[in-house]
Amino acid sequence: MTENERLAALIEAAIARVNQDEIDRPVLPEVEMTKPYGKYCDHSVLRAYTKSEIISAFCKEAIEYGAAAVSVNPIHIPLVKKELEGSGVNTGASVGFPLGATTPAVKAFETAEAIANGAEEIDMVSNIGALRDKNYELYLKDIQGVVAAAKGAPVKVIIETCYLTREEKIAATALAQEGGATYIKTSTGMGTRGARAADVILMRRTVEDKVMIKAAADVTCREDADTMIKAGAVRLGISRLIAIVTDNKDAPCAAMVNKPAPLPKE
Amino acid sequence: MTENERLAALIEAAIARVNQDEIDRPVLPEVEMTKPYGKYCDHSVLRAYTKSEIISAFCKEAIEYGAAAVSVNPIHIPLVKKELEGSGVNTGASVGFPLGATTPAVKAFETAEAIANGAEEIDMVSNIGALRDKNYELYLKDIQGVVAAAKGAPVKVIIETCYLTREEKIAATALAQEGGATYIKTSTGMGTRGARAADVILMRRTVEDKVMIKAAADVTCREDADTMIKAGAVRLGISRLIAIVTDNKDAPCAAMVNKPAPLPKE
Repeated sequence: MTENERLAALIEAAIARVNQDEIDRPVLPEVEMTKPYGKYCDHSVLRAYTKSEIISAFCKEAIEYGAAAVSVNPIHIPLVKKELEGSGVNTGASVGFPLGATTPAVKAFETAEAIANGAEEIDMVSNIGALRDKNYELYLKDIQGVVAAAKGAPVKVIIETCYLTREEKIAATALAQEGGATYIKTSTGMGTRGARAADVILMRRTVEDKVMIKAAADVTCREDADTMIKAGAVRLGISRLIAIVTDNKDAPCAAMVNKPAPLPKE
Repeated sequence: MTENERLAALIEAAIARVNQDEIDRPVLPEVEMTKPYGKYCDHSVLRAYTKSEIISAFCKEAIEYGAAAVSVNPIHIPLVKKELEGSGVNTGASVGFPLGATTPAVKAFETAEAIANGAEEIDMVSNIGALRDKNYELYLKDIQGVVAAAKGAPVKVIIETCYLTREEKIAATALAQEGGATYIKTSTGMGTRGARAADVILMRRTVEDKVMIKAAADVTCREDADTMIKAGAVRLGISRLIAIVTDNKDAPCAAMVNKPAPLPKE
């Protein structure tokens, strides 16, 4: 049995398990909140054009409103580390972001440098093309390389659900679990859509509550956050920290998270 | 004088020169074609979800229709190198794509690995946030690191015009020239818009025809290609190779390239 065959069998078993679970438990129990809203939130600022002053402003908000982490691109890690010093808010680095289409060696190098610069959490984009090619060995190796380079820091593996079929979502989740992910994460925020509650529930069934789930993008307000926390997400990738923590009813609410999630065209 | 002050002075001089050139030559002469349409085209397939079979199909089209290069993400370089073997079509790798917000060390590492895997051209995304921060030293160092790692292979520096003011476009172009760019390139195709003829002309005034220009994204048909070649682009980043080379009048034509180019909101 090749490594790819072993992984294909692991995926088949996960799909069978999820299928049975959907029969046994058509509706999963809602998950109760265990911490303040802020501690569910990774305050994220990841645009190509982001200036340092915007990064600093996000850090100040994260401290004031008690976020779990500030998530930024690697170039901003030293600044975020300095801004968050002693605050209890973690510094989070994106890796292979947002396409996931660079090599395992580059992702491992980027991770090691981010950790050396002070990152305490890594959000990596997995190799979506490899998964769709059924090159499970490459998909897994890519994740394992980042987990090793993170030296114990939590790794959130982004599977980018917007580009995957139901079976591919289960496969990606099962392989991320096999690869040592601390969290499995729905979305980059730069694909064709963000997180959906249905995806969080499918991922939760797949990991059997053994790995945590992060729902990212399209989570815009308290109502969205509530939906995702009940579905089973323990981290939320957001940029509207204040609206969520303060439950600002005047802030825009996209209310996308309960929408269905069609596949994009090839 | 610090390095950043030296570069700020270099940029001021470039802006003054372009301002004077716009007075002296309100309309630049149209550039004549010097090669077949295919040889202007980098056939590009850069999506997160791209499968190997799509990459192979792009390579076959590039060979059949005589493209200059096939541009792909780093994970696909070995496959493209193999597909294009002996064809005269170059293998092109994207670096720091599409945000440009990783570190100089990561971009240099990614470039060196792509070259080792067979890449013959590098399309790098510059550090847009650093430019907007007026951290010209970092912006330049990032480009110089990739040029050094490319070991003589042509480097196309993407300035991502959609996020820049007129003065920032001149600054980015002047710094890319200073850093040793072979081409200066308008766009990633993943920003808020693609290339505009007005941007190509502004870049051409800035480099005084000493560095070549690549127009990428929103170039969808023969008419768009003609507009960009006349404006001064000698490479086009496209995915509609066949429509452009065969001048297919039934293919959709976005006709965006002559549109104005407003700045996005912060």
